[in-house]
Order: sequence, then C-alpha cells, then structure tokens
Amino acid sequence: MSTTNVKAFGTGAPDAPLAPINIERRDVLPNDIEIEILYCGVCHSDLHTARNDWGFTTYPTVPGHEIVGKVTRVGSAVTKLKVGDVAAVGCLVDSCRTCSSCKQDLEQYCLNGWVGTYNSEDKHLGGMTYGGYSEKIVVDENYVLTVPPNLDLAAVAPLLCAGITTWSPLRHWKVTKGSKVAVVGLGGLGHMAIKLAKGLGAEVTLFSRTPGKEKDAKQLGADAVIISTDEAQMATVAGKFDVIIDTVPYVHDVNPYITTLCISGTLVLVGYLGGLDPILNTVPMIMGRKSVAASLIGGIAETQEMLNFCGEHNIVSEIEIIKMQDINQAYERMLKSDVRYRFVIDMASLKG
Amino acid sequence: MSTTNVKAFGTGAPDAPLAPINIERRDVLPNDIEIEILYCGVCHSDLHTARNDWGFTTYPTVPGHEIVGKVTRVGSAVTKLKVGDVAAVGCLVDSCRTCSSCKQDLEQYCLNGWVGTYNSEDKHLGGMTYGGYSEKIVVDENYVLTVPPNLDLAAVAPLLCAGITTWSPLRHWKVTKGSKVAVVGLGGLGHMAIKLAKGLGAEVTLFSRTPGKEKDAKQLGADAVIISTDEAQMATVAGKFDVIIDTVPYVHDVNPYITTLCISGTLVLVGYLGGLDPILNTVPMIMGRKSVAASLIGGIAETQEMLNFCGEHNIVSEIEIIKMQDINQAYERMLKSDVRYRFVIDMASLKG
Ligand SMILES: [Zn+2]
Ligand SMILES: [Zn+2]
Ligand SMILES: [Zn+2]
Ligand SMILES: [Zn+2]
Repeated sequence: MSTTNVKAFGTGAPDAPLAPINIERRDVLPNDIEIEILYCGVCHSDLHTARNDWGFTTYPTVPGHEIVGKVTRVGSAVTKLKVGDVAAVGCLVDSCRTCSSCKQDLEQYCLNGWVGTYNSEDKHLGGMTYGGYSEKIVVDENYVLTVPPNLDLAAVAPLLCAGITTWSPLRHWKVTKGSKVAVVGLGGLGHMAIKLAKGLGAEVTLFSRTPGKEKDAKQLGADAVIISTDEAQMATVAGKFDVIIDTVPYVHDVNPYITTLCISGTLVLVGYLGGLDPILNTVPMIMGRKSVAASLIGGIAETQEMLNFCGEHNIVSEIEIIKMQDINQAYERMLKSDVRYRFVIDMASLKG
Repeated sequence: MSTTNVKAFGTGAPDAPLAPINIERRDVLPNDIEIEILYCGVCHSDLHTARNDWGFTTYPTVPGHEIVGKVTRVGSAVTKLKVGDVAAVGCLVDSCRTCSSCKQDLEQYCLNGWVGTYNSEDKHLGGMTYGGYSEKIVVDENYVLTVPPNLDLAAVAPLLCAGITTWSPLRHWKVTKGSKVAVVGLGGLGHMAIKLAKGLGAEVTLFSRTPGKEKDAKQLGADAVIISTDEAQMATVAGKFDVIIDTVPYVHDVNPYITTLCISGTLVLVGYLGGLDPILNTVPMIMGRKSVAASLIGGIAETQEMLNFCGEHNIVSEIEIIKMQDINQAYERMLKSDVRYRFVIDMASLKG
C-alpha cells in the first residue's frame, strides 16, 4: 500500500518526552479523506497513553483525537466532503459497521471493538494508528465529521472528545428545556457539560470541591455553584437534579451526589474508570428509583448532531493555544489542572 | 374518634413470638373502606419489622401488607367499591397527595413520606398503623385496589408486595415483547419477576447460585437458567440482557451480572438495602453505557395496572397457605428459604 511520510510528535517510551517523529499515512482509498490538520486538542487520554498509565500503549505512539483540519485529497467514492472543505475527526476512525451497536449509530460501543484514532490496530498499514499530533491524517469518510462554518476552528477541536463525551449522556438521558442538570468537576469535560446542558435549555449547577469557581462557572453558563464539601449547601439541592454529569477522572465518593438526584434521576460517570470507593449505598437509590450509569464518548451521527447544535448555538470550547513543541509542558500543567479549559495545538507550529 | 376492637396477631418485643393481640380500627370516614381480611401474604419485611432488624420498629407491631379481603362497610363518599366486593391493600395506605411524586402516581416515592400499612404513624388514631395480620382493616379508598374476578384470592395476596415490587421496574425500564430479562434469585420476588416478565412477552433467564432450580424456574416461565458461579455459563450470556431484576436481599457482588447486560442495559436492585460490596467497577459500565438502579414497590395506579394485567394473563403467586397460629414457624422456614414461594395466611384461622 502506498503511503506518504509525514511529520508528527510522539514518544517511544513511557518516560520519554514527546518529540518529533515521522510516520506513514496511507494514500487515500476510494472512501478515504486526507486531512491537513490545523488544530488538535489535548485530552487527558493523550497524556495517559503517552505515559502508558493504563498499561496498553504500544510504542511509538502519537496521541491526539480532537482533530480539525482541511481536506487535501479525497478518494474516488467520497461524497461527504471535497478538497478545501473543513473536516474534523474525533476519538474513533473505524468500527465493524455490522454489529448491533454499529447499526444503531453507537460505534463507541462496537461489539467487535472500534478503531481508536491512536494506539489501535491499524487495519490498513499494520502496526498502530497514529493520532492528531501530526501534519495529516487519512480517515474513511464515514468517520469524518463536518464543521459548521461559523465556529472558530481552534475552539471546535475539543468538541470532538470533551464535547461529545458530555453531549452523549445529556441526550441519552433526555436533558431538555427545564431539565435540572448538575456537573461535577470544572475541567475540559465539565466546562463543556455546562455549555451544552445550558444550550439544551437546562438549569445548570456546578458541583465544586473548592470555592472560587463561581465567576468562571457562571460565565460558562452555570446558574449556580454548590460547594460539595459544604453540607448546608448540599442540603439546599437535595432531591433536585434530573441528571448529574460526573466528570471527575479519579476515584471519589459519589454518594453525596446521589442524594441530590430527584426521583428517577441518574448520575452518569464520564471520567472515572475503576471501582466505586467508598462503596455505593443503595438505600438513597431505592428510596428514589435512582440510577448510577457510565457513558463513553459518542457515536459518529451523534457527534455530527453535537457539532451542528454547537453551530446553531455558537458553542465552542474555552481554549489556550499552544505550539506543538510546548506539549510536554502542557502535560505538566494539565496534571496540576492549570488549564482553562483545554489546550489546543496550533499544528502550523509542527511545520516551522 | 369511634373505633372497633378487632383480633390481630402481633408482637410487643423483638425477641417475642407473634401472638394474639387486640387492636382498634377506626370507623369508616367518608372516604374509607372497611375490609374483612380473607388472606394476607407473608413478606420478609414482616419478619424484619417484627424482630426490629432495621431498628425502627415501634411496639406492639402487627405486620402484613399483602392483603385481600371483602368490603364490609364503606364511607358516605366512597365510589370505588361497595359492600361485598373484593378489595386489596398493599404496602401503603396513604401519602401526602400533594408532592410532585404523589401527583405523578409515584406515592411510593412521596417526598413527605408515605404511610406504610404497618409500623407508620397513624394519622387518625395516633400511634402506629397495624397491618394485615388482623380481622379487619380500614383504608382510604384511594389506596384500596380492586381484584380481577377470575383470580384465586389467596394467590393474589403476594401480588400486593412481591408482585408490584418486580412489576414497577419491569414497566419503568420498558420491558416488552422480545425484551431480554434476567432475574437474580428465586424467592417470593424472583418467582413473580419471572411470571410478570414472561407475561410481558420477554425472554426470561434466571440467575441462580446453585443448580437444581431448572425445573421449577421453567415451570414458572423462565426460558433458561444460568448458574452464576459457573464462568463458562456466564460467558454464554455476556452482553445479553436489557434489564436484570436483582431480588437478592443480602449483600452480594453485582459485578458479574453487569457483564451480562447489553449496551444501555440496566440492573435494578429491588431486594437489597446497603452498600455495594464488593465495590462496583465502572469499567464494564462505561464500555456499554450500563446502569445500576434501585426500585421500591410501586404506586397505587401501577399496582392496579399490575393486578389488571395479572387478571388478563391469569398470573398469581405460587403459595403455601398457613394458619395465623403457624406464623412463627413460617418465619423460621422463610429464614431458611424453605418456601415455594410465598406463605399466605388464611385469616379465617384467626377467628377459630
Ligand atoms: Zn479524549
Ligand atoms: Zn460494530
Ligand atoms: Zn413486602
Ligand atoms: Zn407525596
């Protein structure tokens, strides 16, 4: 298979900083779109994969799955986009297309395993897929998104992961005008959850463990901020929320939030992978038919729906633009939550 | 307030056996129905309340909330039933009627606290409410159910708690023709869950920890039995079930059942009050948008819906009829799960 050699940023070992490397991209097949990457958002998964925090990284690895760019070539059968159009790619670049999940536009739950934008088996070239910290990417048109023309392209990038990760549960659990939604945590995911829930017409409350987030949260669209460690404040929202989007990525006690769900309400974990410790108490759940659920990114059709919604409501991420060469410092700042609210790499810096 | 003195069976202390006592029933108010109790099912809650296992029993206590009887008097404003009709009473005899839950026919989640059929504050007479282990009961018509004429009255009694407790989650989580439902545990609740899910047209699987339940489960309507401790058998149902009704009343590991839920599936706890230990792992939940929920009995309208459904589908509980005087031995047998599947007291024995 013919390929093109492109510049990228990646790493060959968990403890090595990201640095320039060269990777191959396949030449477009009939259904492929080649995209020159203009912006790539920086997700916590990028950092965890680079450092093998989850134990399944294959090196070398090139992270990045919040990709916005310009179409530079299209395969002979492509109808979705043409050369020069803006295109976007999120967390997945392929799936089996035949399982019950794929047939229901739930590619993120593909029963045969979807192909991640990076660190997944590359069906075409062998080896692993390489992500958006690179000049170009080649993706089947069925996994490429279109971008509303009115949005700032750099600020669109984080919608492809942080946006869809919070949008999908808001939609699945039917958040609409007048819904009461709470968001736990104000990071990349949390700030998008506030904006999207507000856009859907919900009354939005931010749960924060520390004071001082009020002004920022309200600028993002939150109606209220509750300090979750303050029992008196927590009591004021007992039984209130239809849906809680819990974006906290580390182990934490969800029990206090359960008491703030209304009858038949649902708390959805979107950031944490692991055991619920302290243990989940079923008593407040049974007394109000409450649910604890978890949700992973979103499907392709739903991602397009979210992008279109953001176009209509002028919603983008709050970002700090960095150069590709600053990625290692950016990771260090992310570990200290020192980012409002998402780093986005200006990929022009990779050419320089 | 004028009252009538009636015979009952109750206890004055956690360690005392149940024995004859006399209690007062109010004379009918305009909206009240007086019922001569013919049959009363024996629920695990009766035993736990009699022995103060939950720590909130007020003595003396008269258990029983699976009540079927005949109307003997009606208040001046009563329209639902007339003297001589068959009537039924379940777990709750009143609620605030004004909160958002009550207005949605979710009296079981009344935000101001519903009045239990026993061991709740009696708004009329002071003291506590007394349950169905008695000759008569007086209940506001809005909390009295009607019984389809084709059903065996003794076998109807357990529908009022075991039936509605499993019916409500089956309906809330939209079990219908072709749904794949699993039931954990084959006791009073579990056997009703099988019958009701089957009646709704679902494909029903019983999870059991021990072999030997196959024949019984299939007679009740189960399509399959899976031994939950057998990993090979569990692997055959990975990703299968839309809804799991978990009736196990003691602490147990729900994680193996989560893997048997399909994408967007829900496990509903209806029997266990306490902490989920071993801890719930969110990884299989996030990988399939799965939920863990809990559900409590059901509302009055939903209980009537269930009774009508049972009439149409000829569904009743499997019962063993006992005399009132045998209640203490029955409790001992229940503790050993030595009952198929519900004891029902023939209340004629109380008169003898
Ligand atoms: Zn991501
Ligand atoms: Zn698939
Ligand atoms: Zn009961
Ligand atoms: Zn109420």
